Amino acid sequence: MDSRNNTPSIPEMAQAARQSLSALASASGMARQTALNRMAEKLLEVKAELFAANAEDLAAAPGLSPAFQKRLQVTEKIFDYMLKRLREAAALPDPVGRVLEGRTMPSGLQVSKVAVPIGVIAIIYEARPNVTTDAAAVALKSGNAVILKGGSESIRTNRVLARAMREALAEAGLPADAVQLIERTDHDAVRELLQQDQYVDLVIPRGGKQLIRAVSEGTRIPVLKHYDGICHQYVAADADEAIAVSLVVNSKCQRVEVCNALETLLVDADCAERLLPPIAAALRAQGVELRGCKETRKIVSECLPATEADWDTEYLAPILSIKVVHGIEEAIDHIAKHGSGHTDGIITGSLELARRFTCAVDSASVLVNASTRLSGGGDYGMGAVVGISTDRLHARGPVGPAELCTYKWIAIGNGTLRE
Amino acid sequence: MDSRNNTPSIPEMAQAARQSLSALASASGMARQTALNRMAEKLLEVKAELFAANAEDLAAAPGLSPAFQKRLQVTEKIFDYMLKRLREAAALPDPVGRVLEGRTMPSGLQVSKVAVPIGVIAIIYEARPNVTTDAAAVALKSGNAVILKGGSESIRTNRVLARAMREALAEAGLPADAVQLIERTDHDAVRELLQQDQYVDLVIPRGGKQLIRAVSEGTRIPVLKHYDGICHQYVAADADEAIAVSLVVNSKCQRVEVCNALETLLVDADCAERLLPPIAAALRAQGVELRGCKETRKIVSECLPATEADWDTEYLAPILSIKVVHGIEEAIDHIAKHGSGHTDGIITGSLELARRFTCAVDSASVLVNASTRLSGGGDYGMGAVVGISTDRLHARGPVGPAELCTYKWIAIGNGTLRE
Repeated sequence: MDSRNNTPSIPEMAQAARQSLSALASASGMARQTALNRMAEKLLEVKAELFAANAEDLAAAPGLSPAFQKRLQVTEKIFDYMLKRLREAAALPDPVGRVLEGRTMPSGLQVSKVAVPIGVIAIIYEARPNVTTDAAAVALKSGNAVILKGGSESIRTNRVLARAMREALAEAGLPADAVQLIERTDHDAVRELLQQDQYVDLVIPRGGKQLIRAVSEGTRIPVLKHYDGICHQYVAADADEAIAVSLVVNSKCQRVEVCNALETLLVDADCAERLLPPIAAALRAQGVELRGCKETRKIVSECLPATEADWDTEYLAPILSIKVVHGIEEAIDHIAKHGSGHTDGIITGSLELARRFTCAVDSASVLVNASTRLSGGGDYGMGAVVGISTDRLHARGPVGPAELCTYKWIAIGNGTLRE
Repeated sequence: MDSRNNTPSIPEMAQAARQSLSALASASGMARQTALNRMAEKLLEVKAELFAANAEDLAAAPGLSPAFQKRLQVTEKIFDYMLKRLREAAALPDPVGRVLEGRTMPSGLQVSKVAVPIGVIAIIYEARPNVTTDAAAVALKSGNAVILKGGSESIRTNRVLARAMREALAEAGLPADAVQLIERTDHDAVRELLQQDQYVDLVIPRGGKQLIRAVSEGTRIPVLKHYDGICHQYVAADADEAIAVSLVVNSKCQRVEVCNALETLLVDADCAERLLPPIAAALRAQGVELRGCKETRKIVSECLPATEADWDTEYLAPILSIKVVHGIEEAIDHIAKHGSGHTDGIITGSLELARRFTCAVDSASVLVNASTRLSGGGDYGMGAVVGISTDRLHARGPVGPAELCTYKWIAIGNGTLRE
């Protein structure tokens, strides 16, 4: 017990989560589906309490910026979104028990590789309370237990959410301990959580660069990171004007503050005079500030000069850097040097250029004639996700329930021996 | 450059390996296959030189134990085995470019998840020189570059092997820099290598527990670990005598010093009097020392008493601990508490017991009526492997060329926008 507030200590919570795993593993996918749907019903039951707790959280933080308050607030729209995400996760096919591959060997051994939960997943995040249910839903869908550590500003809201989820689990016949909320708001709480490598299999930090870096440097537990998206579109020499304009505008403007928004536009020198003016005009009409290389500024005079730092900047704002490149190889090299391996696209009608680009660009998502904003779980048909991994190991790109599984090999013989 | 011996410094080598990746990624699977076959031919060409270098290594280490010298020596048999492993890796299907999943979304976006190399893989190992070619072959098969850091005692042997592999790569039109051998034998060399997180994507330590622990605690680079195999067989109440005896003997005795050898036998109380005597007799005939729980010793009088420490010990020797358990749940609990998540089996004719065991036991390999010695790459149809991972993330169980891949998402649209 934690003497400070008479609640379980962090090691006790981590251990409780771990102990819930065997009951979770024995439960059917149907039981997990029922629990997720029941969570949505529970949220409706506690809606008034939830909004009151959220109002208290907001009142307790009068000094916060309007942007921060907005992230903290559970509006009707966000509440509906939370319900929707829980129900969507419930409706997804069960990722546990998928046979990923298999064969019968000459020895008679029947070998199969079967998806199983990873185990205990700690999720460390900042203000937005919807992450509490969104992330828990994805992790629970695949039979994992979760330890949630949200921002201290949303603690009252999160407490209501976690209790609702725990009750829903119990009512579905699953262990309530599969959801743990760390209520401590002191700075040491995260540090202590990161020491529970005996009980925790994976940490997912959801938030800014600083949070992710602090988490991954402070633990021996594997961390699934989603760093910057410095996303590019390369407009090849042959690109169609209408397609290029609409893709660039959609990639940059559909939502600017997210990791798969366009940050740098590469335009081939052979089409720069033809395509830069209409692209620049369309972006300016959307209020986007343009920062260009020397060649860009010769064509687009209203463009600010780009510095070297611009090529390495994730603006998350209505700003776009533009560079004229001389052929696809320069585009590929620029992306290799300055990209973050998140999402990069080419706009072309040439099969040969598309092939070269998709082969040579080493990013989690490589797009052809598609908006960078499409790189994500929903638009890839993966349903709910907890984030977009920029790691190379385990999961790369969108992380949904299937990515929160590991596997085991099951081999069935009939007294089969090794020769 | 490293001023000590005028060779490239470790950061320079790591960078050279990284720079080889784009040429590797653009090369065909055929070119990688040719390079691996060419490596086997090269080894034949330099055979006399290799054996001379190995003799020098042996001569330079007169104080080493006979067991260590044996590991260090390249015999004719080991040489043939090295050739065989290179050719086997060459013959395996190409793991790069496999389409792991894919679909066309309602938006028209054609999404596919395609296997690509992980990147630069550092392999840190001890005496056996065959790891130099075995591990490099698996990593190169999937288009990775490798940085090899072998034991200092085998440096002359490894130098000949690495040069042969680099020449073979060049002759196959691939970058020689995809194979790097760290020739420094000082202790700081490993430490420096582990700091190259800018260039190295994965570290695989191959060796004892101490090496693995030192590596994983000393780096920010992801580490693929293969810790102990404390492997169990659970003999269920209904087990057939002949099958139980032969499986236990094969699991324990086929080779005792390896990670998938049997270390603890769990015998159901309902069959202990029937099966323990013939099992014990067969094991003793093979010279295996038995250490049993109280109930075991009531039935098998020649058995030494097992202490609590025995249940947590990987003997890697002709010793077996034996425990009588009361039903499958006690067997499952014992494995959860004392197992290492490597390989655990059940011997039964009951479908229900087999189902319960394979569901509840959370190990990389869960076997039914099969020798623990079968858990591995070859017997699972995976071809050459670099080891058997006891990690839960990325790869679990045998690690072959397919497990040394990551993937990227390729999404092809026709001007497809995000709504």
